[in-house]
Amino acid sequence: MNARRQAVRDQVLRTAADLFRERGYRATTLDDIAARLGMSKASLYTYFHAKEEMLAAISRQTIAAFTRELSLVLRSDLAPEDKLRRVVRDHVRFVIANRSFLTVFFSEETNLPPRLARALAAQKDRYDKGVESIVVEGARRGVFRDVPPRLVVFGLLGMLNWLYKWYNPRGRWGAEEISTGFLSLVEGGLLRRRSGGPALGRRLARLQRELQELSRALDA
Amino acid sequence: MNARRQAVRDQVLRTAADLFRERGYRATTLDDIAARLGMSKASLYTYFHAKEEMLAAISRQTIAAFTRELSLVLRSDLAPEDKLRRVVRDHVRFVIANRSFLTVFFSEETNLPPRLARALAAQKDRYDKGVESIVVEGARRGVFRDVPPRLVVFGLLGMLNWLYKWYNPRGRWGAEEISTGFLSLVEGGLLRRRSGGPALGRRLARLQRELQELSRALDA
Repeated sequence: MNARRQAVRDQVLRTAADLFRERGYRATTLDDIAARLGMSKASLYTYFHAKEEMLAAISRQTIAAFTRELSLVLRSDLAPEDKLRRVVRDHVRFVIANRSFLTVFFSEETNLPPRLARALAAQKDRYDKGVESIVVEGARRGVFRDVPPRLVVFGLLGMLNWLYKWYNPRGRWGAEEISTGFLSLVEGGLLRRRSGGPALGRRLARLQRELQELSRALDA
Repeated sequence: MNARRQAVRDQVLRTAADLFRERGYRATTLDDIAARLGMSKASLYTYFHAKEEMLAAISRQTIAAFTRELSLVLRSDLAPEDKLRRVVRDHVRFVIANRSFLTVFFSEETNLPPRLARALAAQKDRYDKGVESIVVEGARRGVFRDVPPRLVVFGLLGMLNWLYKWYNPRGRWGAEEISTGFLSLVEGGLLRRRSGGPALGRRLARLQRELQELSRALDA
């Protein structure tokens, strides 16, 4: 496919995804898509023959993009905590930049042909396992606390994927603020650290008093 | 409505939600629902006149149940960290017990009449703000760390809501294990606490050596 044809094809998919997100997949027609593109239906047909093909292409491209970014991170020689940071930042950026694709990807699974739905489910599962391997490595090296890795992955991806529901492009936060906030929460937790708590503080105060008394006794 | 009629109505909604989840809302017909219930279409009509009514009832009941549980927590005199713990446990239990309702609630928004969709969005927003008030209170009291409260709420609800996508009733985790894992992650964070790090450890070791030397010097 030449570059121009590829660019138009991308534009067709992006427009279809926007309409699927706004009106729902079933309610959107090929006429709607052609109209918004300002394209004749005959031209549209040279790219896609049916709505189902567009839905399949959107789903395939979405999971392929996720998989590609993750495999770059997995192959890098970063420490596990830095790998996880990159996954979070990549994921947030991707969800924000492709909100319509993600909405379609997450909401229209029941409209996919069963064979494709199964293939995508297997790819999603591989993605989850890739992220899990980072968490397992971090726990093995003693950098991460002991929380069931699969729950960490589901929790983290839930946090990140849910963005497609609430992200507002005219809102106060961009990808950077959102990643930083989520990373701070996931890395440090919500509860303020008491570093040993009052018991250690009391023991330290008692030792200091004893040292002062000893010191005075020696001076006397 | 008498108790028996109410019970049948609940059963109708539950069956409709199961079918909407399995096949998608648009692809499910009233005939499908009547058939699975083993009910004539005429009897079904005495409960609901259209699929749209069922979708509306499912959405209304879902948000009403969330709102009810949250307002009990908000009115309690629990500490903010315990309020948040209860919200997490309630939410996990509810999503697991009502997976079909939640799938429909989260996936079929575009199929709702616009007026109802707006009313539900407003109720969801009130729910988010209720959870946010707990996070704000915890931060004010110095129990929670300083992460933007709205991001904490979106992150937390993303984690909890995403359950409807991956929860497997035949899987290894029940509501209790999932809440405990998520709470551990959200409260404590993923990074292992170093409680002051190696610098403090070295200072302590040096003080202990000095104390031993002083003690020996005094004994000598």
